[in-house]
Amino acid sequence: MDEYIRRLKEGSLKLYALEKELPPEEAVRVRRTFIEGETGTRLPAVGSFSIGIDRVVKRNIENMIGTVQVPLGVAGPLKVNGEYAAGSCYLPLATTEGALVASVNRGCSLITRAGGADVRIMRDGMTRAPVFAARDVVHAQKVVAWVEGHTPEIREVAESTTKHGEFLDVVTYVAGTSVFVRLEFDTKDAMGMNMVTIASQKVGELIERETGARLVALSGNMCTDKKPAAINLVRGRGKTVVAGVRLTDAMIADLLKTDAETLTAVNYRKNLVGSARAASFGFNAHAANVIAAIFIACGQDAAHVVEGSSAITTVDRVDGGVYVSVTLPSLPVGTVGGGTGVDTQRECLAMLGVAGGGDPPGTHAKAFAEVVAAGVLAGELSLLGALAAQHLARAHKDLGRG
Amino acid sequence: MDEYIRRLKEGSLKLYALEKELPPEEAVRVRRTFIEGETGTRLPAVGSFSIGIDRVVKRNIENMIGTVQVPLGVAGPLKVNGEYAAGSCYLPLATTEGALVASVNRGCSLITRAGGADVRIMRDGMTRAPVFAARDVVHAQKVVAWVEGHTPEIREVAESTTKHGEFLDVVTYVAGTSVFVRLEFDTKDAMGMNMVTIASQKVGELIERETGARLVALSGNMCTDKKPAAINLVRGRGKTVVAGVRLTDAMIADLLKTDAETLTAVNYRKNLVGSARAASFGFNAHAANVIAAIFIACGQDAAHVVEGSSAITTVDRVDGGVYVSVTLPSLPVGTVGGGTGVDTQRECLAMLGVAGGGDPPGTHAKAFAEVVAAGVLAGELSLLGALAAQHLARAHKDLGRG
Amino acid sequence: MDEYIRRLKEGSLKLYALEKELPPEEAVRVRRTFIEGETGTRLPAVGSFSIGIDRVVKRNIENMIGTVQVPLGVAGPLKVNGEYAAGSCYLPLATTEGALVASVNRGCSLITRAGGADVRIMRDGMTRAPVFAARDVVHAQKVVAWVEGHTPEIREVAESTTKHGEFLDVVTYVAGTSVFVRLEFDTKDAMGMNMVTIASQKVGELIERETGARLVALSGNMCTDKKPAAINLVRGRGKTVVAGVRLTDAMIADLLKTDAETLTAVNYRKNLVGSARAASFGFNAHAANVIAAIFIACGQDAAHVVEGSSAITTVDRVDGGVYVSVTLPSLPVGTVGGGTGVDTQRECLAMLGVAGGGDPPGTHAKAFAEVVAAGVLAGELSLLGALAAQHLARAHKDLGRG
Amino acid sequence: MDEYIRRLKEGSLKLYALEKELPPEEAVRVRRTFIEGETGTRLPAVGSFSIGIDRVVKRNIENMIGTVQVPLGVAGPLKVNGEYAAGSCYLPLATTEGALVASVNRGCSLITRAGGADVRIMRDGMTRAPVFAARDVVHAQKVVAWVEGHTPEIREVAESTTKHGEFLDVVTYVAGTSVFVRLEFDTKDAMGMNMVTIASQKVGELIERETGARLVALSGNMCTDKKPAAINLVRGRGKTVVAGVRLTDAMIADLLKTDAETLTAVNYRKNLVGSARAASFGFNAHAANVIAAIFIACGQDAAHVVEGSSAITTVDRVDGGVYVSVTLPSLPVGTVGGGTGVDTQRECLAMLGVAGGGDPPGTHAKAFAEVVAAGVLAGELSLLGALAAQHLARAHKDLGRG
Repeated sequence: MDEYIRRLKEGSLKLYALEKELPPEEAVRVRRTFIEGETGTRLPAVGSFSIGIDRVVKRNIENMIGTVQVPLGVAGPLKVNGEYAAGSCYLPLATTEGALVASVNRGCSLITRAGGADVRIMRDGMTRAPVFAARDVVHAQKVVAWVEGHTPEIREVAESTTKHGEFLDVVTYVAGTSVFVRLEFDTKDAMGMNMVTIASQKVGELIERETGARLVALSGNMCTDKKPAAINLVRGRGKTVVAGVRLTDAMIADLLKTDAETLTAVNYRKNLVGSARAASFGFNAHAANVIAAIFIACGQDAAHVVEGSSAITTVDRVDGGVYVSVTLPSLPVGTVGGGTGVDTQRECLAMLGVAGGGDPPGTHAKAFAEVVAAGVLAGELSLLGALAAQHLARAHKDLGRG
Repeated sequence: MDEYIRRLKEGSLKLYALEKELPPEEAVRVRRTFIEGETGTRLPAVGSFSIGIDRVVKRNIENMIGTVQVPLGVAGPLKVNGEYAAGSCYLPLATTEGALVASVNRGCSLITRAGGADVRIMRDGMTRAPVFAARDVVHAQKVVAWVEGHTPEIREVAESTTKHGEFLDVVTYVAGTSVFVRLEFDTKDAMGMNMVTIASQKVGELIERETGARLVALSGNMCTDKKPAAINLVRGRGKTVVAGVRLTDAMIADLLKTDAETLTAVNYRKNLVGSARAASFGFNAHAANVIAAIFIACGQDAAHVVEGSSAITTVDRVDGGVYVSVTLPSLPVGTVGGGTGVDTQRECLAMLGVAGGGDPPGTHAKAFAEVVAAGVLAGELSLLGALAAQHLARAHKDLGRG
Repeated sequence: MDEYIRRLKEGSLKLYALEKELPPEEAVRVRRTFIEGETGTRLPAVGSFSIGIDRVVKRNIENMIGTVQVPLGVAGPLKVNGEYAAGSCYLPLATTEGALVASVNRGCSLITRAGGADVRIMRDGMTRAPVFAARDVVHAQKVVAWVEGHTPEIREVAESTTKHGEFLDVVTYVAGTSVFVRLEFDTKDAMGMNMVTIASQKVGELIERETGARLVALSGNMCTDKKPAAINLVRGRGKTVVAGVRLTDAMIADLLKTDAETLTAVNYRKNLVGSARAASFGFNAHAANVIAAIFIACGQDAAHVVEGSSAITTVDRVDGGVYVSVTLPSLPVGTVGGGTGVDTQRECLAMLGVAGGGDPPGTHAKAFAEVVAAGVLAGELSLLGALAAQHLARAHKDLGRG
Repeated sequence: MDEYIRRLKEGSLKLYALEKELPPEEAVRVRRTFIEGETGTRLPAVGSFSIGIDRVVKRNIENMIGTVQVPLGVAGPLKVNGEYAAGSCYLPLATTEGALVASVNRGCSLITRAGGADVRIMRDGMTRAPVFAARDVVHAQKVVAWVEGHTPEIREVAESTTKHGEFLDVVTYVAGTSVFVRLEFDTKDAMGMNMVTIASQKVGELIERETGARLVALSGNMCTDKKPAAINLVRGRGKTVVAGVRLTDAMIADLLKTDAETLTAVNYRKNLVGSARAASFGFNAHAANVIAAIFIACGQDAAHVVEGSSAITTVDRVDGGVYVSVTLPSLPVGTVGGGTGVDTQRECLAMLGVAGGGDPPGTHAKAFAEVVAAGVLAGELSLLGALAAQHLARAHKDLGRG
């Protein structure tokens, strides 16, 4: 140990190189000890992990010093009436925000009592959009024309890079001399960012070669990855999922302690008018909370909470109650690759019956997306209900006064 | 055990009620066993945690069944020249996205070699915006006038609810009969959402009482919490932080294997023109990645990655190199409350020297925000550099052909 | 004539220089004749104008060859219950879109029958935001600090450039090394863009001199002028105006041939959910139509229709009917300067009783803004009503079948 | 006359009904006289028009009382290297904003000296998106599936309503129970809103009949018409046009009195970083100004300036100078229908050689779109140049001091 620490200190050994000389557990221990020394901080909890890390240090992280333990709770049972997920499940939620699990849990009860959440996937495709520099706008148009005229070749090159992925579509955008080529793939059970990046690299080289436009960056931000962007609302990225449930007046009264009119009013003024006035791309109460908690639990890319947050929540008045829905235009999820193989995360996916690849391929990721949407619906119902109940309570109190 | 399981199955014991009858560790174990049975899934990894959970089950989570372990790596040393954080640190990054830590690490090396990242906090204030229903637009104007004319009373009521928080400002917005009252507080070392919500409750009741407008929802989405919203870019929410570093041509060549012109071009076409063409609120390469990884490591609210993702990255050509910056208009962070007290998360904050409350209050959260911004800058530099190096490599290869 | 044409053709006389040698009417005639020759097009209608052009050629246009005649219709009477405009008026609407005037006219009848539109101005201030280049983010912060600490000097310099304008506020924004200083003025009866630009020039030079930051452009696009921008929704630009009216079920049935429920549903699905799904900054049916028609009639800057189009239209269900409103966050208008002095435009303003400066100053522009908002409300009511009536008619027809 | 006035006053004759009893000129005169009386305002200029109004009162306006005369200037010659417009032209600009024509004129000189503006149309299609109410999300998915599976029938029904229009595409969007069906047509030389609305009516009825979903509104705001909306940037509406020009250092110095570096810096800080920081959908200097002036001159729908304002302006540094471009994602224009037949407007179109229908159909509207884009480029160049020259002048002055 001391020898490694010494070499790290003097710089003759790089921090990231420890795994080359030591088995993973040892490398992590030495690195942590070094960091403890450098920062003057004891890290016993970080160091006291139980997951297997052989694959983790190769695939998921560099410079590992341990793990962070995020409390995991469950909400449910939640009945989901999807095309891929059907039946009851318990949602795994990793969070440190007190009351979140309890809130989602209440929404699950309500949905389940109402017969379950209907969920449908409207679109499915992961994207990457390299940007090219054309010489001028005439050249830009030629690049576009070449791409539009050579879809079969692009498909062939793209699919040559992947066993699992399937090329779906290519769309071009021009801004002056910048040409953006947005490639879309069915990435089956993988979230698919790596897959499409590799394919885009090859396609990008093809386009560069054939058109003479310069490939400036493999991602030109029209993908759009991990930034709030309208293009994802309009064209989708990952899954576009919609979930809905019909609540009777009795259910609203019993479980939410409010009524249809108040629930509708809260959604109208807060989620629609309020978000409009704030120039927001998200018209929901707290979709990101639920998505973040499920994503961390299930080994998804936590930065994709950004895409997930642009949900639209609606409350329609219908005879005898309300129909409540959430629409997630852009939900990137997967059940293989990324963090889905880490022990604890894999168990969470297993709890939902969607660990690993589905049969046929893609069905696990789709089922998982349906569950996430139903979970977001549960969260929305619960929070809107709570706000409406407070509102109603105040109104009653005031009436009582008079 | 079996008795509890039996009662849970028959419904005579609620899942969330276990802590009332059992000590936390036991309650969690029983609940996990129940879930294992219900879902037909073994959860040994989830159950094998090492953090202390006495406080956790009271404050951070309900229906706990264990933890999720997120791999933790470090990037650094990173030199930060802030007003609150000054000196070198190692960034704790909890992620399962392979190559992320390595990428940020490379950016840290570059920044440190360049003398450190300059960081400045431009604004600081946590917000909550209840929405009220006025009778008509004339009444709406009166509500606005009342609020604008009674700031001292609003301040007094707001501050009566908190020992730590300080009222900063109140702004009103009207959309038809909906009046939004955006309250802003200095919440010191806390991220502060709970604090401002409690204060807003009291202020909301005051306004309701005095104006006759109905308090429809404590949050009217003009806060705006966990949704991408322009109001947060324009008025800020949490910290507004800017970080920058000057790189010489030699540094760019040595560490990024590219040159100033290419680096500038990549940022221009991708982060500016590309995001513009995508109608995005984020003009950066992957700020959300770094923010998500630090947030999970340090017990922040992971759903706040949404706010953090609206960063603007700039690359200015300057004599002898470039000046690169990131601007985070809306970064909600804290070093007390929320998940900051969980053992592993607390150790991560301690590594940065910002665990718990600062002296004077607020300085820890501010220092932490500066570190996050410097970390985002490291991530941007590294990814832009990699894209530029690839671009340059292809260009050279092509030249070599000819 | 021939001599001038010859000189224009050979280039010894510049097209714009004709007014230096000839009286306006003559110059315009010669220029038109020249253009007729160059383009091979006869322009008798363009040349057959009747407005006085002495001032026009000095203030409103260069290279004049005649006028374009836009058909002018009236809608009304429209009862407006504003703070500045009170009573009935006829709206002048210059448009070539068939059915627009008729539609607005129907809305006016409805509003007037309902007792008039309540209108209130919530904010009023014209802005200009020069952008400065700082050396680095530390310098950027210093520039911000200087501005915030020298408001009195900024006010003094700003107000030294104008007899009429009043400095209201200054707000700063930083994006890396770019510092934006958004100055806001009460420009009284003028729309005020020129006034604030001149003031900003002086303030910009002051800031440049005192801080060493370079004034890069007098407008840094955070003003934001003539682009759809969230900053104008959040902070306002020009007038922020809200108009509303309560309609009984009887009025809805008689004049709109529909009912409260259908009207509410159309607004909900179209103006709120539809605009949300389109990632729009405008939540209205056709506010821009009415604004464009009034603006052209009344000599406003037609490019400001952009700002006006970001209206929010709401329909609240209330006992016995609905309450309908429009909110215009950013409406730049004036009754002096710009095109307000052209003969036909001046007559349109006079029809509304707001031609020229008000007494006290500012009251004419405010009254005009109130009228515009009421006009937009009329247009929204009429179009929403028509859509709802069609919807209802189809529903009835279907019922009839069964 | 007096008799009509009397009947109008007592309400036995409606203002809009005058044309039923009188020839157009007379009806307009009586109506104007009535309005003069009601408003106590003399309207001689409004009444002194010279255009023929027989068609105007039937097609373009109701309740006509005269015309508004907008001063018309010309800028040019402007050399356009388009696919439809090729050669030099003079831009007709109807405006009251002093200095605008002069500014555009300077840009035209620069472009023409540089050999002309390259212009290309990247997309072309007018849209309308009715909104339907489904019973629930399962039904919504079925509606989507029906639409996607019946494109031929939709095309047939759509094209049965028009002699000229051609069905291009149909795309569906769901938000909860709202289904939006965005129909796109090639409307040839017409701007095409009426054409697509009529076609959408028939298609909407078909969908309603076949799916049982209720057609709530013929426009569901996902068209998106006359509101700033990202969907139009992403999918286009009307023409998507790009124009560009290469300027040498000498041209920049001679005509703009600045240099490439300063010009690039101004565009970078103002049009890109500034607009990003303002959360804008427009990344240009003043595209709306030029569009508004041409639109009014040429009988376009002035409310469509909104769509046109979302232009992106870029300045690329290239060897020996700069390449400047504008991209207009959404430019709705036509040369037949709407206001294009009014005498003065028709002359303006004729000046450009694009009055009436083109041969083959669509070529006039396309040529006109190219001219508009080149005109916007001229306006951008001139304003950016002026800002840059001021910046440079200040810099030189400062150097002179030292």
